[in-house]
Amino acid sequence: MIIDCHGHYTTAPKALEAFRQQQIADPSARPATPSISDDQIRESLEGAQLKLQRERGTDLTIFSPRAAGMGHHIGDGNTSLAWTQVCNDLIHRCCTLYPDKFVGVCQLPQTPGMPPTNSIAELERCVKQLGFIGCNLNPDPSGGWWKDPPLTDKWWFPFYEKMVELDVPAMIHVSASCNPNFHTTGGHYINGDTTAFMQLITSDLFKEFPTLKFIIPHGGGAAPYHWGRYRGIAQDLKRPLLKDHLLKNVYFDTCVYHQPGIDLLTKVIPVDNILFASEMVGAVRGVDPETGHYYDDTKRYVDALTLGAADKQKIFEGNARRVFSRLRR
Amino acid sequence: MIIDCHGHYTTAPKALEAFRQQQIADPSARPATPSISDDQIRESLEGAQLKLQRERGTDLTIFSPRAAGMGHHIGDGNTSLAWTQVCNDLIHRCCTLYPDKFVGVCQLPQTPGMPPTNSIAELERCVKQLGFIGCNLNPDPSGGWWKDPPLTDKWWFPFYEKMVELDVPAMIHVSASCNPNFHTTGGHYINGDTTAFMQLITSDLFKEFPTLKFIIPHGGGAAPYHWGRYRGIAQDLKRPLLKDHLLKNVYFDTCVYHQPGIDLLTKVIPVDNILFASEMVGAVRGVDPETGHYYDDTKRYVDALTLGAADKQKIFEGNARRVFSRLRR
Repeated sequence: MIIDCHGHYTTAPKALEAFRQQQIADPSARPATPSISDDQIRESLEGAQLKLQRERGTDLTIFSPRAAGMGHHIGDGNTSLAWTQVCNDLIHRCCTLYPDKFVGVCQLPQTPGMPPTNSIAELERCVKQLGFIGCNLNPDPSGGWWKDPPLTDKWWFPFYEKMVELDVPAMIHVSASCNPNFHTTGGHYINGDTTAFMQLITSDLFKEFPTLKFIIPHGGGAAPYHWGRYRGIAQDLKRPLLKDHLLKNVYFDTCVYHQPGIDLLTKVIPVDNILFASEMVGAVRGVDPETGHYYDDTKRYVDALTLGAADKQKIFEGNARRVFSRLRR
Repeated sequence: MIIDCHGHYTTAPKALEAFRQQQIADPSARPATPSISDDQIRESLEGAQLKLQRERGTDLTIFSPRAAGMGHHIGDGNTSLAWTQVCNDLIHRCCTLYPDKFVGVCQLPQTPGMPPTNSIAELERCVKQLGFIGCNLNPDPSGGWWKDPPLTDKWWFPFYEKMVELDVPAMIHVSASCNPNFHTTGGHYINGDTTAFMQLITSDLFKEFPTLKFIIPHGGGAAPYHWGRYRGIAQDLKRPLLKDHLLKNVYFDTCVYHQPGIDLLTKVIPVDNILFASEMVGAVRGVDPETGHYYDDTKRYVDALTLGAADKQKIFEGNARRVFSRLRR
């Protein structure tokens, strides 16, 4: 079985976007829940995520709302909560229509400057009532201005306590950038990953929360490529070896869109810490003229590795089942 | 000959730091030029950069003030100019004392919100009077808040015109972060590189300035590791192929502190676009227990590549002479 741990509902029916546009036009507005039929949902998935699953030979996608669409910086806590619930409910409908193809991970109702405790109720609702198995945690709800405390600050601890209690991991995933310096998927996403990883090096967060689990997407941002730098900085800072300090709690996905990148990832990071993912339908939608295949068809890159079958099984399935523990239930 | 294109004067005599502390305590103060003897300069270099050059077998370092020390966010334009001139003059003294070992690259008197035209006079002074061959350009003078326009904005064009006129490249290099989310050397530096690279993808800057040359340090941030992603995003954005769009103007250094990273860099990026560098004495100062050698002894990683002698000569010397054209004079 092949589990893709990072897929977003980027193809949702237009009524969802219309709801959002009403919110953006007037953040204090309370638009009606968008009217979307089951057939519209099926149609939005059949020609996209489901088609690609079939073509590429992947089985199950751990599925969450469009990351760039989370837009936590828009409006206030009420705006964010209303939008988040609409998005999560739609993911739940996808998972209900295709229970063998999708399992849910939730967006959180974060808002810049508002404590992460505000996200606890929605996490609990999604896990307990909707059967979701994880969440996407935005380390920068301000959308490229980085105004909230680092992930290692006590500010976040009540939320982590709930994650631990519910036994769900978080993928650390920023949303759209409204800072003109940062292109969303090419700058802000990768910077968010790198930033989070370096924050974790400097802290003892996992002493405080030994069973907390984070997935750093997009192949861990720059971390594996600069693994020597990060080992060296940790050493200069008198931190433990990264494998002891972070790798019982931190995982990387395989959203790296060329063979040399996946080769490096799997050479540098222990196989137990790598989860298969494609981010489809996502940041890059084209076909690579150098290979004739979709850039984001990351299964091909993993297939091409010289790893043994047991290691590939870990990347494709075993690690996801371990990290997303509720998937087994 | 081996040219290290990225070295900082991180070991300057204490009088320099005392000057800076006076400025920080009172940004409107005008402290006297720090009194530093030639012997103090020799001593600061002999046990550090010069010792490492000898031990590692490198010949010439393209040398600039400590990057984390630039601190463009401190004080106003006058503070920044006074500090910059003191730092650049000290680099000039190093280069004068050891003309075969160091050649200067200048810090710029940038200030958040102030137009880059303010840096033109100091660039001109350093190049024409002090014999410097390039500059370090900070894409985020606000120190981690990213408040100024992207590098591709017309805001920067008058400065680029002067770079082109003087025929000097810029290394795109942020300074210390005062945003608690970003560790300076582990987060902000690498993000700065990634951010700049992605900014360049979205623009036609090099159509406007066909002879403008940028070096993206620290192995290009995350760019080579995510080369497939960047090729794919450029393609989705209907940009030209990266090799045509950027690689006549953009270069990467080899400040990547482990063999797999350097392997990837040289596999993905054309050899003509890679400049040898170590960033010594810099971000990582320890010895890698996995190799028994300094993390930042990047010459070992390049030596270990299976590239031919002609390609290695390009990385070690030829490309630096081409990019830093004034070095030949």
